[in-house]
Amino acid sequence: MAYNLWYWPGLQGRGEFVRLSLEAAGIEYRDCGREEGAEALIENMRSFARKPYAPPYLEIDGIAIAHVANILMYLGERHHLAPSNMADRLWLHQVELTIADMVAEVHNVHHPVGGGAYYEDQKAEAARAAKQFREERIPKFLTHFEQVANTNPGEWLIDHRWCYTDCSLFQLVEGLRYMFPNAMRNFASDYPALMRIRDQVADLPGIKTYLNSDRRVPFNQDGIFRHYPELDEE
Amino acid sequence: MAYNLWYWPGLQGRGEFVRLSLEAAGIEYRDCGREEGAEALIENMRSFARKPYAPPYLEIDGIAIAHVANILMYLGERHHLAPSNMADRLWLHQVELTIADMVAEVHNVHHPVGGGAYYEDQKAEAARAAKQFREERIPKFLTHFEQVANTNPGEWLIDHRWCYTDCSLFQLVEGLRYMFPNAMRNFASDYPALMRIRDQVADLPGIKTYLNSDRRVPFNQDGIFRHYPELDEE
Repeated sequence: MAYNLWYWPGLQGRGEFVRLSLEAAGIEYRDCGREEGAEALIENMRSFARKPYAPPYLEIDGIAIAHVANILMYLGERHHLAPSNMADRLWLHQVELTIADMVAEVHNVHHPVGGGAYYEDQKAEAARAAKQFREERIPKFLTHFEQVANTNPGEWLIDHRWCYTDCSLFQLVEGLRYMFPNAMRNFASDYPALMRIRDQVADLPGIKTYLNSDRRVPFNQDGIFRHYPELDEE
Repeated sequence: MAYNLWYWPGLQGRGEFVRLSLEAAGIEYRDCGREEGAEALIENMRSFARKPYAPPYLEIDGIAIAHVANILMYLGERHHLAPSNMADRLWLHQVELTIADMVAEVHNVHHPVGGGAYYEDQKAEAARAAKQFREERIPKFLTHFEQVANTNPGEWLIDHRWCYTDCSLFQLVEGLRYMFPNAMRNFASDYPALMRIRDQVADLPGIKTYLNSDRRVPFNQDGIFRHYPELDEE
């Protein structure tokens, strides 16, 4: 039976981290928000006794599993998208949670004053936030993820096969390169282990097919990773 | 054997969410950062093959389990601080992750431009961020948590006994009331179910003892919840 994935239509957003692992594994899913629209999503979200705070979520047997890292942990265990021993599972989950933290900071770059106001109303603050993000946060996070990728040199994050966190690192790298082409221009030489993971994921048959399909919505200015050239200047 | 908990000394911070569940359950732990200082923490953090991105983390058998929600999920399973069936476990973890998201936004209120600059250097931006946080984010999050608390009326979040997420909601409420005494002044009447959970946790024997001990560091301006009166004005 196909999973019901619910997320906002028209953008990659946080839902993309879930889609990539589903696509890489060839797991059937319905992208319900895209098929039925935002109103149906809001209505569905309200239908649960235990309501999710926000999309994305998987709808399974009348419950909603929300938060990217939680969804991926669930899929990882159920579909063997991650090693099954406790130390590895906890490690991958914590790396995934660090990715989620960086994604939240990425969103904050263009909405430093708050998600309730438009970027256009907080451009001055965003310029300051972007400068610090480019100069301090990107190197700090990516140096960490480079170390993470180097704990299993020449291979996937863990072991000899991909896991869901590999797919999430791919998306993080792609998003940052779209958002900050200038600040990320030396990425391949600065972070070779991360580049290796990125390339390996891009080369997975399920991912290749997905990226060439119209299911992969291009990056755009409604998503989390947004390319405002003025935020990428030195 | 006592757990080694590592977190920055001198503040509650994110470490407090872990301490509260440990204290409520009477689980022995060493608060290593407080005992040995920040330098020892940094040195310890660097000693792992799989390094945590940031404290807090539990050091167990040579591995570091980091991220509050990940640590609490681990403790919850190992010490029965949460129901053991899958639906309940995933639900509590996702509520805990929503708490973590709100805590990150709390930090962002006094550091909208970035954690690398001081509050004093971003006061104008913080004033704008605080206004939106008070008027939009607090009601949105707390309405959600009120619904969460109402899924099991008159009781704990799940079932007839406390779980780790009850303790985390307590800390979230205490922190917000410290940070925004003005904006939170009608909390008890606006969010009665959350107030019930807060009071029940405060009344747990382990928590009562802890709150009256010198192990509970008072809220202060180095933590995540900071009381800047100018950010609490209408």
